[in-house]
Amino acid sequence: MIKYYSINGELVNKEQASLGVTDLAIQRGYGLFDYFVVKKGQPLFFEDYLDRVEQSAKWLHLELLVTREALREQVLQLIRANGEQEAGIKIILTGGYADDGYSPAKPNLIILEMPPPVYPKSKFEQGVKLMLYEHHRTFPSAKSINYIVGIYLLPQQQAAGAEDVLFHSNGEIYETTRANFFIVKQDDTIVTAGEGVLHGITRKRLLEVAKHHYAIELRNPSLDELKLAKEAFITSSTRLLMPVVQVDEVTIGDGKPGSVTQRLLELMKAEVVRYLDEH
Amino acid sequence: MIKYYSINGELVNKEQASLGVTDLAIQRGYGLFDYFVVKKGQPLFFEDYLDRVEQSAKWLHLELLVTREALREQVLQLIRANGEQEAGIKIILTGGYADDGYSPAKPNLIILEMPPPVYPKSKFEQGVKLMLYEHHRTFPSAKSINYIVGIYLLPQQQAAGAEDVLFHSNGEIYETTRANFFIVKQDDTIVTAGEGVLHGITRKRLLEVAKHHYAIELRNPSLDELKLAKEAFITSSTRLLMPVVQVDEVTIGDGKPGSVTQRLLELMKAEVVRYLDEH
Repeated sequence: MIKYYSINGELVNKEQASLGVTDLAIQRGYGLFDYFVVKKGQPLFFEDYLDRVEQSAKWLHLELLVTREALREQVLQLIRANGEQEAGIKIILTGGYADDGYSPAKPNLIILEMPPPVYPKSKFEQGVKLMLYEHHRTFPSAKSINYIVGIYLLPQQQAAGAEDVLFHSNGEIYETTRANFFIVKQDDTIVTAGEGVLHGITRKRLLEVAKHHYAIELRNPSLDELKLAKEAFITSSTRLLMPVVQVDEVTIGDGKPGSVTQRLLELMKAEVVRYLDEH
Repeated sequence: MIKYYSINGELVNKEQASLGVTDLAIQRGYGLFDYFVVKKGQPLFFEDYLDRVEQSAKWLHLELLVTREALREQVLQLIRANGEQEAGIKIILTGGYADDGYSPAKPNLIILEMPPPVYPKSKFEQGVKLMLYEHHRTFPSAKSINYIVGIYLLPQQQAAGAEDVLFHSNGEIYETTRANFFIVKQDDTIVTAGEGVLHGITRKRLLEVAKHHYAIELRNPSLDELKLAKEAFITSSTRLLMPVVQVDEVTIGDGKPGSVTQRLLELMKAEVVRYLDEH
């Protein structure tokens, strides 16, 4: 039973966990976050996520106020207190209480724990559909809390039966609202955007694992290439790796998850096991 | 003394006014707001702002949950309780407590009251500088709480001694982070963006007042036109109308607030007096 959240280092009963309404997250949507899963009681790829929290804070001019060691300990304290072996953890750092309603102040640090993400098996076995939308995220490399475009598009996404929205700009594909996007070319080369996207932790691990087996091109896949792709997939902290078989009206390959995607999913599952064994 | 805020229709001591940390404003920066001033105890141009709150809510798929009459009464109740004749009021409608951390739920309605905006007289007498930045706001016509770009740029803005950041894209000027932007051409024609910007309430009143005296062109001023402009100014709820005499390294006109700007400021002050007398 998840009973607690952590607010500025204090465990708080989750029903009582609150922020004053002048916080800059509430007044101006200003803050950063990160999210990772807990498996067998361990935060998966923990140090990578702590790295990214530090990078996002630097990018957004928000001071973390605690050392990396203290932040790590706050997360572990929360996991211990809630006693769950499988969960999701979200770290949020907000702009703090802004007297003038605009200037970042002393940030508030929130750590939420939630049930682990669950996706129907069918999505991995049959693949999912994505919906295209022309947009390039603002400051994509910082994991800010700004999700206005994705949330605004939710009704359209649901009407289209799409798992997520795939952003493109000037004919080039970037990422989805919450995942990195990859295509597999006919010669099995893997292509994913190198810059202008969030550098996902799962993306990073995937690239490390994949490079021993496949050629990799770090560049934006073009919209035209999508029609010629053999396979496509997305990676994220919640989904690990999920096959994509349709983008708008374009069927990817033969419309079924391909062999490269399936092999990469197995390699990633093994990477998770390896990590948990080693930590 | 401002002692209260209003949270979902209840007056709350402002030190106790809070939101649970799973609100979508905190998790995903999703919400809308509006801001207006109170003069002689009256919300200035009140119905225009209530219109815009309704429009923003529709745009962002957030349900207001209260009627317009109830919202109006909540604002007036707060003003009465705090007893201030001169103030600023901010209405915020958030995405609500999102179980899945992403989908809008039952919105939370917050009304804040704060001291009235105060700007040094010198800014109106001598004019201010703006800093250019290439960007076009996401969903500019909805007054969302998304201010990531402006707040991110604050250190640069302050280093440049700029009053605000002026957004341009493809050679065309849109608006500043928190104000509408106007130029006055050599023939006294007023030019301001017609679409792709927030339709400011002060902008609307200015255009109504100005059309009896000047020709108006509703189109984006170009960056090149800036160098040829006779005058420039911004309008916003807090500033009413403020002369702009410099944009980056470009001096506007002779570097002093011009006669058209000054006349429009007088006309706007008279419009405020007229409104207060009539309400």
